[in-house]
Amino acid sequence: MSSSPNLPHPDRSEISLTSVLFALSDPERLAIARQLVDGPLDMAECHLSNPDVPKSTKSHLMKVLRTSGVVRNEANGRGRRLSLRREDLDARFPGLLDAVLSAADGNAKP
Amino acid sequence: MSSSPNLPHPDRSEISLTSVLFALSDPERLAIARQLVDGPLDMAECHLSNPDVPKSTKSHLMKVLRTSGVVRNEANGRGRRLSLRREDLDARFPGLLDAVLSAADGNAKP
Repeated sequence: MSSSPNLPHPDRSEISLTSVLFALSDPERLAIARQLVDGPLDMAECHLSNPDVPKSTKSHLMKVLRTSGVVRNEANGRGRRLSLRREDLDARFPGLLDAVLSAADGNAKP
Repeated sequence: MSSSPNLPHPDRSEISLTSVLFALSDPERLAIARQLVDGPLDMAECHLSNPDVPKSTKSHLMKVLRTSGVVRNEANGRGRRLSLRREDLDARFPGLLDAVLSAADGNAKP
């Protein structure tokens, strides 16, 4: 787990539609976003569907979610706290997050 | 332009959320989808924002849109006809296409 206290996040106005779509286009990243629907979680509480994913891969998934503006990732004691940037995303792209999160997975062809 | 008369398309039930999000996560592919909002177009009428994109790249962009289920690509005389699979996408992922297509581009950070 990174110990950088303040990781960079895009401002609301900088959040790009295509970057958000890309961040949510990976099944593991989408699953992480869905875990945050009911509120923030510590990074250690976020589980990947594939438990064999290396820590470095998990870090990279988290970085894509953060730099796209989907997730806020803040220092919280010794760990990190993840939260969905719902208010920012709803303001930028009305209806998008709800449509994605409420959609059936439908990964017949991943 | 490919002369294959019948290219494969996923059935409605096979369309995957993450594949659709991925297809729309590229600015050029998203721009093509937006050009089809008002109705089908011949492939020759679909313009990329970067006119220097090689024909092979355009073909690949079209292939991603087709295999993800976003666009139908059918033989039409000597050319090909592209249409947005709006009915299929709306049935699979209610609200998603409208949210994406109505969103401001917001590609401050592509």
